[in-house]
Amino acid sequence: MEKVNLTEKFEQFQEMWSPKIVGEVNNTAVKLVKLKDEFVWHHHDNEDELFLVVKGRLLMKFRDRDVWLDEGELIVIPRGVEHLPVAPEEVHVLLVEPNTTLNTGNVQNERTIANLQHL
Amino acid sequence: MEKVNLTEKFEQFQEMWSPKIVGEVNNTAVKLVKLKDEFVWHHHDNEDELFLVVKGRLLMKFRDRDVWLDEGELIVIPRGVEHLPVAPEEVHVLLVEPNTTLNTGNVQNERTIANLQHL
Repeated sequence: MEKVNLTEKFEQFQEMWSPKIVGEVNNTAVKLVKLKDEFVWHHHDNEDELFLVVKGRLLMKFRDRDVWLDEGELIVIPRGVEHLPVAPEEVHVLLVEPNTTLNTGNVQNERTIANLQHL
Repeated sequence: MEKVNLTEKFEQFQEMWSPKIVGEVNNTAVKLVKLKDEFVWHHHDNEDELFLVVKGRLLMKFRDRDVWLDEGELIVIPRGVEHLPVAPEEVHVLLVEPNTTLNTGNVQNERTIANLQHL
């Protein structure tokens, strides 16, 4: 049971779009991820997903609108809702989601990461 | 599906030790709480609990050691582990825990808050 310093953890990896697990709370994982550029449209059939911006600025695109998230802002994306994260500049994000959640949701492609590293 | 600005949410309440729900991810709640002074020793029989310090400094006491948490630091307290949060100065904390978790865990007293407000 060690504490986690978010800044230190973010310094430990450079890959983009590759979530790392830093804590587990029951069946829910807390993951850190760095984002840059555009991801892929996807949704999660059975899982809600929370994005909290720790550093930078994130654009979350939905089919009917765009939401900009600044540092200290979070959004919960309910299951089934299509979304596309876009990061014009590098952004550091804390995710809260079931530890079984796949980053690409219903889509499986070369950006899918199934086995997450623990930091 | 609205975004949540943590600073704005913290400005909406002043009570100490009274968690407010700002988001739900599956069966997990994200709660905001302001802490000042000392709480009560307790544990949670079946639930892990995550504390992330958003502002200020939190002392988490365990039976065998103390852990200081600064801004941007988190700790997961596994089920069954007795803990005592202490805030010499006011501290703002984001909690991730099952939405059924009682703030006082196994202890029920005048500090127990069973019905949490949504912000």
